[in-house]
Amino acid sequence: MFSQQLRIPGPTPVPPRVQRAMNHDMVGHRDEETKQLIHSIQPLLPPIFGTKQDVIIIESSGTGALETAAVNMASAGDEVLVAVTGAFGDRFAAICEAHQFKTHRLNTTWGEACSPDELKTYLLGHPNIQVVFLTFCETSTGVLNPVKELAKVVHEFSDAYVVVDGVSSVGGTESNMDEWGIDVLVTGSQKALMLPPGLAFVAVSERAWKRIENNSHPRFYFDLSSYKKALGEDSTPFTPAVSLLFGLKESVTLIAEEGLENVYARHRVMRDMTRKACKALGLPLLAADEFASPTITAVKPEHFSAKQLKTLLKENVNLNVAGGQGHLADEIIRIGHMGYCSPNDVLLCIGLLETGLSKLTGADTFGIGTKEAEKEYFRFISQNKEENA
Amino acid sequence: MFSQQLRIPGPTPVPPRVQRAMNHDMVGHRDEETKQLIHSIQPLLPPIFGTKQDVIIIESSGTGALETAAVNMASAGDEVLVAVTGAFGDRFAAICEAHQFKTHRLNTTWGEACSPDELKTYLLGHPNIQVVFLTFCETSTGVLNPVKELAKVVHEFSDAYVVVDGVSSVGGTESNMDEWGIDVLVTGSQKALMLPPGLAFVAVSERAWKRIENNSHPRFYFDLSSYKKALGEDSTPFTPAVSLLFGLKESVTLIAEEGLENVYARHRVMRDMTRKACKALGLPLLAADEFASPTITAVKPEHFSAKQLKTLLKENVNLNVAGGQGHLADEIIRIGHMGYCSPNDVLLCIGLLETGLSKLTGADTFGIGTKEAEKEYFRFISQNKEENA
Repeated sequence: MFSQQLRIPGPTPVPPRVQRAMNHDMVGHRDEETKQLIHSIQPLLPPIFGTKQDVIIIESSGTGALETAAVNMASAGDEVLVAVTGAFGDRFAAICEAHQFKTHRLNTTWGEACSPDELKTYLLGHPNIQVVFLTFCETSTGVLNPVKELAKVVHEFSDAYVVVDGVSSVGGTESNMDEWGIDVLVTGSQKALMLPPGLAFVAVSERAWKRIENNSHPRFYFDLSSYKKALGEDSTPFTPAVSLLFGLKESVTLIAEEGLENVYARHRVMRDMTRKACKALGLPLLAADEFASPTITAVKPEHFSAKQLKTLLKENVNLNVAGGQGHLADEIIRIGHMGYCSPNDVLLCIGLLETGLSKLTGADTFGIGTKEAEKEYFRFISQNKEENA
Repeated sequence: MFSQQLRIPGPTPVPPRVQRAMNHDMVGHRDEETKQLIHSIQPLLPPIFGTKQDVIIIESSGTGALETAAVNMASAGDEVLVAVTGAFGDRFAAICEAHQFKTHRLNTTWGEACSPDELKTYLLGHPNIQVVFLTFCETSTGVLNPVKELAKVVHEFSDAYVVVDGVSSVGGTESNMDEWGIDVLVTGSQKALMLPPGLAFVAVSERAWKRIENNSHPRFYFDLSSYKKALGEDSTPFTPAVSLLFGLKESVTLIAEEGLENVYARHRVMRDMTRKACKALGLPLLAADEFASPTITAVKPEHFSAKQLKTLLKENVNLNVAGGQGHLADEIIRIGHMGYCSPNDVLLCIGLLETGLSKLTGADTFGIGTKEAEKEYFRFISQNKEENA
């Protein structure tokens, strides 16, 4: 009867205003109304990516967006490098391998961030690498890779293009695509953009557009050039997911209304509340503070089973957190705090977490994390007050 | 203020029950609830395709499904034949060409159906063709190609596989995939399946699965094998469009409740009402009776502009019909009568069409088409009554 607390790192809860917008009567996908819809969405997307470029919208999951980036930016036989810091870096590499790119993997222990120094060394040792694929927030570990520094290294020590998976970061943490020299930045709809799954987004630098136009790697549905051409007429090359577009207009409007800086500050305080609480509860965090994502936190318990905790939380207190992926499947729980999620939701989540924890371990952990989360929340609202005074 | 009459050949109106189902709270895409959802949808799909095989669900537009069929069934350099009877046959060929298949085109004048005899001759003259791509209902012309006979010819005179675009036919007219020897049958969500755009469906014969498993053509998001493997666990390889899946369960339930035979009979009477009315109104039909699709009717006016009529209908009587595609863009109007559409809707559509027509031409066409449509409707309900008596 009661709604579950959905605190997985995507799909994330859909705001009621967005849900209502998606209930719009079906319209013709080539009608003026749809053109106007696309036209009105367009100016609201680039600031979220930190770019002046148009943002292409594709009907697919986030993986479709990763493949779109790959097949437009490289060709069979091209040497590419993927910085693998978790399951999604691994997926990026698998996509490149499926397309017969000569794929190098720069592997980092899951839970750690890719190091700019290691990237530099690798690039210097492999001067033929043409494209570097990075993961901004590695959803499987909660690590926010230092994309700004990594992109800088790529440009300083090679001529390679920089392609970034921004699936669980774009809209939740600052992306300065143009300033940082990112050539392609992709994301999906079901994370910080507060929509159901179904849409993917691709932003492309001017320099990358030239490469794309000269790239003959076979592709059709994922051919970015056809989307670019159609977008010039406020249209799409193939039937767009109209109902999701109605929702998208509302979700990017919500973001604009809150203000991007406030959205990012909200995500930061949600991260800090979660981490302070976990520390107080003696729950080891997978990612170091320095590389902790504002959108998702992974916890790696030492004295009990993460899987058991996850199940207990769902069955007893209606809190839905995610387990791990790959070799971390049963080793961690992942708490999502992005999109339609406020510090209030996080406070509740901590309360539920410690209630469940007490049941699982028998220890008296009541209120211990909550106390620290409240302090962090208090600091945040006090700061805001000062700023507004 | 008033809803438009959306009578384009897709996207089609979404039934309120389906719309409500899509308002389900967001859920975890790997949760038991999503598994159960996928599990409950699965048995309802194969009858619509006329197969005993599972039906794979992909997050993309219909074009994504066409490309999925192509890249799984053929490989660069393979000789393939596309029967091009309109814009969507043309798209199938463009996809094959983009993937560097050696692509033959068997062209038919738009508005006519592909002839089994011509197909036979072509196949005998080109014995290396490995896959034949057919369009069941050519949405751009309203022609229902004789897929049963065409597939028979392919199997009799070659060893080629038969891949069929069923985008505007599946769910609106009988598909007997297994019986007719279709190897791959694809469709999209926004036509006779009564959903918003965003999902694509692919059914694959046992024989074709073997080819797919041995096909090394580069693909990742569209790799059917990964969908098959995940479906075995009531799951998907990539984040599914959860809200559309909730809607899908409702739409295939609606179809099951009405009964497939009744759904098809309803589409046939809607076609017959539309065509009889157009004939009475002196509006030339693009497709011959023999090959007229039950889902969409194209009209090719001789004495006035189709484009003008389309605009006038939208602006004056809130009726939204489609124009043509390709070289027929301004030559025809296309009336969709599929999915969430009843004979009542068609009767209204005819009434609006003749009201607009009178305004455009100045002729007194009031009630002339309606009269014939009503007679056809009357015949239908009388027949049904006898059957039920």
